[in-house]
This record gives sequence, structure tokens and C-alpha cells, in this order.
Amino acid sequence: MDKVRLIEVKEDILSDNENMASEVRERMRKKKAYLLNLMSSPGAGKTSLILRTLEKIKHDIRVGVIEADIDSTVDAEKVMEESGTTAIQLRTGGFCHLDAAMVTQGLDALDLDSLDLVIIENVGNLVCPAEFDTGATKNAMILSVPEGDDKPLKYPLMFSICHVLLVNKIDYLASEDFDLGALKQRVRALNPDIRIIEVSCKTGEGINTWVDWLRNEVETSFSG
Amino acid sequence: MDKVRLIEVKEDILSDNENMASEVRERMRKKKAYLLNLMSSPGAGKTSLILRTLEKIKHDIRVGVIEADIDSTVDAEKVMEESGTTAIQLRTGGFCHLDAAMVTQGLDALDLDSLDLVIIENVGNLVCPAEFDTGATKNAMILSVPEGDDKPLKYPLMFSICHVLLVNKIDYLASEDFDLGALKQRVRALNPDIRIIEVSCKTGEGINTWVDWLRNEVETSFSG
Repeated sequence: MDKVRLIEVKEDILSDNENMASEVRERMRKKKAYLLNLMSSPGAGKTSLILRTLEKIKHDIRVGVIEADIDSTVDAEKVMEESGTTAIQLRTGGFCHLDAAMVTQGLDALDLDSLDLVIIENVGNLVCPAEFDTGATKNAMILSVPEGDDKPLKYPLMFSICHVLLVNKIDYLASEDFDLGALKQRVRALNPDIRIIEVSCKTGEGINTWVDWLRNEVETSFSG
Repeated sequence: MDKVRLIEVKEDILSDNENMASEVRERMRKKKAYLLNLMSSPGAGKTSLILRTLEKIKHDIRVGVIEADIDSTVDAEKVMEESGTTAIQLRTGGFCHLDAAMVTQGLDALDLDSLDLVIIENVGNLVCPAEFDTGATKNAMILSVPEGDDKPLKYPLMFSICHVLLVNKIDYLASEDFDLGALKQRVRALNPDIRIIEVSCKTGEGINTWVDWLRNEVETSFSG
């Protein structure tokens, strides 16, 4: 296995994040490479979803992964080991979210000419990552069933800025006091256009629906 | 039911948090009231643990609760409704953690002379709350089994600053790929003195052990 490339990123408080994000978006558009920003609480299943997704798409979509973590390189190592996909690890050194400047450092370490899709695994946090535009083509988030159906009430910004919500660990629905109808109503009150897909990274349920959504995004976003 | 008292808190970026935290600690010492700062990811079970704890202790320990949330007052309402305990809701308006100045505003709304224990439910976040001393007597955190046993590798500061770790949703151990031995080893490598208690807020398992720890803390911290 190749060694994981580790980049220590720092926040540049003087940078204009909105401008940097626009530059990232323009760069990806020129390269015709789709940038997906995946966010969730710690442990909701971001890395598992990435691994499930890579299994399905890596033979016909060229993917790079940017993993962000406060510390450790376990996620990038897992992605490279289990999927053979190139993964860059950004270590934020205590920092609670990615901004567009940090994403730029990750993109600089990838060969964008040979990629159709870059997936960013943001820091596990439902608060701060929602406040910083990374320059992604679209934002995706995971809510896992054990976290509870009240989370849109408590973290409204995150649910508002995402284009797709994956409800993961759907295999726990029977054993949890989780009202899927109430969740969807709360999410749609914040964000009527969001796509909601129920999945289980453990059983594989719903993964094809998610992959169809992502494949369509990658294929159509920069065509024409 | 009394109406929940809602306080909109703002970060005072000019305040010296360390000094404010010392003032909070001194104030609580004088009042002989214990201040517990409870932290975790979203959905790990902070409110459920508080409700389970109140069931056991509210007849002989006088408790007040300070709930913090980005938005919504659901937690304070639930605590008041289900336990009859006074609960203050701090709304941080997007802010990702509590600091000592915000906690001071919560304490100002409570009658500390008639309380033995104040429990703060911090914002659901494993990153930022670890960086700000609230002035609490002790810090407690919850990690729930569905979040995974690798979290100490990824959020080391949180595990380092806590005096007690509750491993919640222990009833999921059988169905999750979660290595409790590995978790404990990772936690103790960061924090050899931390007390680790396995609980299930759903089944009640381990709650007595936790309550014994807390009761002993409250009874002995300001004696002598």
C-alpha cells in the first residue's frame, strides 16, 4: 500500500473564504471534476459510506478522497487499504471544520486531470462545517438513526445547506424510538428541495439509490 | 409546567475565558454547589442521561439544569416536563460551544443558594466545547457505541480533558463492531486517570454506578 499523504492545514484567518470557495468551484468546473463535501456527526458513517460508494463506482468513475481529521490518519489509511483509491489526509490540528483554503491544499495534492470525482470527508461536527463553503459542487450530510429524529431542530443550518441527506443505520429503525416521518417533515421545513435517501452501510440497503444519485450528478454536472 | 426560561447568549470575544472560568469555579465553591459540564456528539444521549440521573437523585440532591443548543428549546422543555427540575435554555444562535461567560448567564438565572448540583448540557460537538473551560467542577463526556471505538484517535482533546467517560448505548455492543477493550486502551493512553463507566440510558444498565460516582462527587467536593 502507498503511504497516505498527510497535510497539516492551518486556518488562514485573513483569507476571504467566499472568494476562495468560488475559485475552488471554478477550478473543478474547468477540470470537469465533481467535488462532494460529506458532513456528519462523529461516527454517523462518513468513512463507511465512502467505502460502500467506492465499491460501486470505482470501476467506471475515477475518484480521489480528501479525508479531514483533527488528528490521526486512520480514515485515509482505511480508504486506501480497503478500496485502493488515492486518499489525502488533512490534519486540522484541533480545528473544527474545513474551509476552502484547506480544501485547496488537498486538491493541490491530487492529479485533478485524471479524476471525475473528489469526495471530501469533512471533520465530524454538525455545527462549524455548515458555516464554511468549501467550494464543493454539492453538500451531502449523513444523519444516523441512533442520533435521533430531533437533530434538524437543533442543527438547522447543516440541514439547510445540504443538497442530499443520507439517513444511515436505517437497520436500527426497529430498535430506536426514531420517527422517520417526523424527521422528514422537520428537514423539509428547513429545506424543501433536499433529497432524502435512507441507507444502511452495514446491510447495503439503499446504497444503490444513493450511488444512482451521485453517478447522475457526476455525469451531468459538467456536460453540455 | 412552568415555561422554560430562554437566554440568547453571544460570544464576547474580548472576554478572558480563563479568568471567567476561575470566577465561575470560585462562585460555585462559595455556594457549595457542584457544576458538571456534560459533553458529547449530537445524539449520544446527553439529555437521556440527565433524565435518568434526575430520576435517581432528585429526591435528595437539589439539581438545576442548563441546556445549551444552537437553536430550539426542546431539551429544557423535556427536562422540565419529565423530571420537574428547573431547566434554563441557553440558545447560542449558531455558536458551537459554551464558554464561561455564557455559563455565567445561565447560573445568574438559577437560585444557587437552593441547589447542590448544576448540570450543564453543552452543545453537541466533540471538538470546540473541549477547548473552552466553562468553570465546571468536573467535565463528563458520553461516547455512544454506534459512534465507534476509534473516536479517541480523532478527537483526542475531548477525551483528555474529561474526568469521567460514560460509554452509552452499551446494549448495542452485540450488534456493533465495537471493541470496548481497544476503546479503553485508547482513552487511557490520553488520560490515565479518567473513570470509564458503561451505561445504557435505554435499559438502565450501569446508571447506578454513574449516579454513585456523581453523588460522591457532590457530597465530598466542598466538604471539610
